[in-house]
Amino acid sequence: MSTVVLHNVVSLDGFVARPDDDPGPIFDWYFNGDRSLSAQDMADPEPGGLRVSQTSYDYVRPVWDAIGCMVIGRRLFDLTNGWEGRPPTGDHVVVVSHRPRPEGWHPEASYHFVDDVAAAIAKARELAGDRVVALAAGDVGGQALSLGLVDEVAMDVAPVVLGAGKRFFGPHDTEVLLDDPHVVIQGDRVLHLRFRVRR
Amino acid sequence: MSTVVLHNVVSLDGFVARPDDDPGPIFDWYFNGDRSLSAQDMADPEPGGLRVSQTSYDYVRPVWDAIGCMVIGRRLFDLTNGWEGRPPTGDHVVVVSHRPRPEGWHPEASYHFVDDVAAAIAKARELAGDRVVALAAGDVGGQALSLGLVDEVAMDVAPVVLGAGKRFFGPHDTEVLLDDPHVVIQGDRVLHLRFRVRR
Repeated sequence: MSTVVLHNVVSLDGFVARPDDDPGPIFDWYFNGDRSLSAQDMADPEPGGLRVSQTSYDYVRPVWDAIGCMVIGRRLFDLTNGWEGRPPTGDHVVVVSHRPRPEGWHPEASYHFVDDVAAAIAKARELAGDRVVALAAGDVGGQALSLGLVDEVAMDVAPVVLGAGKRFFGPHDTEVLLDDPHVVIQGDRVLHLRFRVRR
Repeated sequence: MSTVVLHNVVSLDGFVARPDDDPGPIFDWYFNGDRSLSAQDMADPEPGGLRVSQTSYDYVRPVWDAIGCMVIGRRLFDLTNGWEGRPPTGDHVVVVSHRPRPEGWHPEASYHFVDDVAAAIAKARELAGDRVVALAAGDVGGQALSLGLVDEVAMDVAPVVLGAGKRFFGPHDTEVLLDDPHVVIQGDRVLHLRFRVRR
């Protein structure tokens, strides 16, 4: 069965973006190395693509390769226009939204619009098979944690205090214990951490 | 000159205590080991004293020994009754408070009541000499960070999501860049991290 991982870049004070949704300097590590994180089948990385350190590449690339389906909120879908129908990781995307798929938007893309977090994760599990379901942090991720639907929390911690912004754990407001981290990897402007949620 | 370190135990979502000031499970690592963290000159640890893992002891004990003066808020002073005049680390305490020292309270103790964060840190530096000034996180620590008065941020990160509570960075609301952590030590129910603030 698939593992559901709440995964995002985060500041030291727990924000995934500034109040205006710009991640600002917490994304520096995506652009300060010489290993392309872009799709594996591209002979050359595109200009402006993600270029991380070797250390981050060695951690992130297998993590991304293991993802079968992403679950995101409508805000991220709208901000990126759904990455034009090509998920950055995995083959499928479930968008938690009360609004349907935009009319005429990339009819070929395996994007699914579901208006409830629990139903969205169930759909994502079905699509992912035995691969990982990657949940974006924020409102959707926080609700999933509250519902007991998250197996692991993965935080790429940037050495930045944002001061204000969108919270990693969104509206989640109850206590949850996790195991000690089974991943602690120091990159360049990022510390990769990964924790299993205790049941 | 002394180094000013903003240092506290913190949850994964950035809280130093529950809303009612109880640290709850983020303090588990203080009581799950077999090395006493109590004052060095005690032949035997007192019952109920702090007992941490060897790994945490090896990190925390020298850190505590380097502290010359603590700076705390009035709330922590009131909650602990100023540790009855015996600071848990260092020889001096500066309390940021508009109210003076309570009448008759431990007249022998080197506790100083200052009504302004910048003045409190200046006083603490004077008292600490070339030793470390340890700032408690929360309102006082956040204000000091905003004023550019913090040299390092030390976080003892517990694998716990509290959901709500007192923020590590208190009212601080501007962006601050730090160096990559120069301390990353995994204990038992705690990850010790330490970052220098970039100037």
